[in-house]
Amino acid sequence: MTMASSELNNRTINLGHGSGGIMTRDLLDEVIFSTFDNPLLNQKHDGAIIKFDTQIAVSTDSFVVSPIFFKGGNIGELAVNGTVNDVAMCGAIPKYLSLAFIVEEGLEMEQFIKIVKSVKKAADKSGVQIITGDTKVVERGKGDKIFINTTGFGAVHPKAQIAAGNIKVGDKIIVNGNIAQHGMAIMSEREGLEFESDIKSDTTNVNHLVLDLLDTFGEEIHLFRDPTRGGMASVLSEIAMDIEMGVKIFENDMPIEKQVAAACEILGLDPLYVANEGVFISIVDEKIADEVLTLMRNHAKGINAACVGHITADHPTKVVMQSTIGGTRMVSPLIGEQLPRIC
Amino acid sequence: MTMASSELNNRTINLGHGSGGIMTRDLLDEVIFSTFDNPLLNQKHDGAIIKFDTQIAVSTDSFVVSPIFFKGGNIGELAVNGTVNDVAMCGAIPKYLSLAFIVEEGLEMEQFIKIVKSVKKAADKSGVQIITGDTKVVERGKGDKIFINTTGFGAVHPKAQIAAGNIKVGDKIIVNGNIAQHGMAIMSEREGLEFESDIKSDTTNVNHLVLDLLDTFGEEIHLFRDPTRGGMASVLSEIAMDIEMGVKIFENDMPIEKQVAAACEILGLDPLYVANEGVFISIVDEKIADEVLTLMRNHAKGINAACVGHITADHPTKVVMQSTIGGTRMVSPLIGEQLPRIC
Repeated sequence: MTMASSELNNRTINLGHGSGGIMTRDLLDEVIFSTFDNPLLNQKHDGAIIKFDTQIAVSTDSFVVSPIFFKGGNIGELAVNGTVNDVAMCGAIPKYLSLAFIVEEGLEMEQFIKIVKSVKKAADKSGVQIITGDTKVVERGKGDKIFINTTGFGAVHPKAQIAAGNIKVGDKIIVNGNIAQHGMAIMSEREGLEFESDIKSDTTNVNHLVLDLLDTFGEEIHLFRDPTRGGMASVLSEIAMDIEMGVKIFENDMPIEKQVAAACEILGLDPLYVANEGVFISIVDEKIADEVLTLMRNHAKGINAACVGHITADHPTKVVMQSTIGGTRMVSPLIGEQLPRIC
Repeated sequence: MTMASSELNNRTINLGHGSGGIMTRDLLDEVIFSTFDNPLLNQKHDGAIIKFDTQIAVSTDSFVVSPIFFKGGNIGELAVNGTVNDVAMCGAIPKYLSLAFIVEEGLEMEQFIKIVKSVKKAADKSGVQIITGDTKVVERGKGDKIFINTTGFGAVHPKAQIAAGNIKVGDKIIVNGNIAQHGMAIMSEREGLEFESDIKSDTTNVNHLVLDLLDTFGEEIHLFRDPTRGGMASVLSEIAMDIEMGVKIFENDMPIEKQVAAACEILGLDPLYVANEGVFISIVDEKIADEVLTLMRNHAKGINAACVGHITADHPTKVVMQSTIGGTRMVSPLIGEQLPRIC
């Protein structure tokens, strides 16, 4: 009953693949179980059984990025990295992911398989296992190629004390790398927004770097947060509102690739509002800021790390940026939508 | 910045609600956090922190049912009950759910709020908390009103020994209630398939009944499985293939409401292939079968419980049904798709 992979490659996903019957089972056997082969998934039950001796960080995200393939990645690796990073932001070591597809009828099997393989590769890089999943198929025109939900589980690091409540005046705000790459990469792919560029999405997993930081600095790291949708501006604004202190940042110190900055300028976009994927901010005790920077810059995922600002007692709940030419301006959170379906 | 609920009620979901900016925050504050209000969710971090001292059962499902409101329920409660039941099928006590929405631009806010409230009500009935979530919005025509992913976590019952490997010849197959209701309820709503009926979806949580069964019978229960997509025929076929034994069932003993059976006949459908939601099968040691039936029939979710068959050494990997008039026939798993987007 099962089909050879070469045969699968010539087909498209159809409604039968979501039926729960033989076609579903064949698709799972041929594509999913063979790719993710591990004892937890192989139970093939309605769920998987896992065990943690620690506290567990749980995070869920649905990925609806369009286009599904873009410079620097695709929706499959994005779905792994995004959730892995969200779990890491909780001060945890990601271990397991669930994986749920909503596929639009007509998606080429070859594309589906490519995405599944990207999921596997990204999961391996992050050191997480896919332990349970689901595949639904919707009629043509009722979805958009493929949406992916991942839910991640991680072991909270024994030294982690990640909580907005631990942030205090004087804490430094450190980013691990160049901002605004993912958003500009997606824009460069979109119809009507195309411009010449080699800008690649920065989608990657940062959990290994986060682990090094927690091992080394423990409770002196007060918060991790990844500025995905809404960009740096939105996540810093949220933090300022939550802690009821001020956030001061310096435009000059914000790491950004020249061509990304140029593309933002051409399109009239503020890079602070553009989505990131492999970027995270750490809010740390000021006395360890230099050491954090040194550690990051010696790590593949933190080469361009920079201290971009600090927490202040001034202008509580507000983010203020000192611009390159010396003036200051308020940074508001994103209000509407800059670019739909960025992740 | 936040809107009064009455104002929200007059609006529709738009792309800004998925931006990660202020509109997202407002929607979350006004609709999500206010509804699910609990300390784990209120961390408002990228994820939630939980702790289990037991093994954990994890299950994920995306719900794409169409229409989103149907006789007997809506997609919100379906998304809770479906995953709660999948966790229970692992022999576990469901505790927490993640909740991720993919909303199509233009969904009426009133409908969204109604669905969110149904999620809350169903979660309360099941005794689970919503601990983390995600909301994405896709453009009009790129989704279909709303899709929901839930991932559930439960504490594996200390006495549970749920594994297909424990099934042996002679084990009895017990269902807790009438079959084929959910599928026929959805069909009765669908354009082109409408017929006069009061058939209601059987969507409900069965976790409390499962807990009673595990408390009472422990390892003498060998398998739980819920025959959702693909119906009884598909799930029994899967089991027969997995255990490499035969499954014998008796048409006469299969509990089904008269009007459901009649509707199936009118539409030329075999109820064994029609989706269920609040139905599960238990494969149990034959010596406890009568007690299991008694316990079930005394429970709100098992009033119509019936023993429908047994495991046999004959016809390994196959399901055979003895019909009402005495003949026998092979029951194959569903091959294509009977009715897309049933759950």
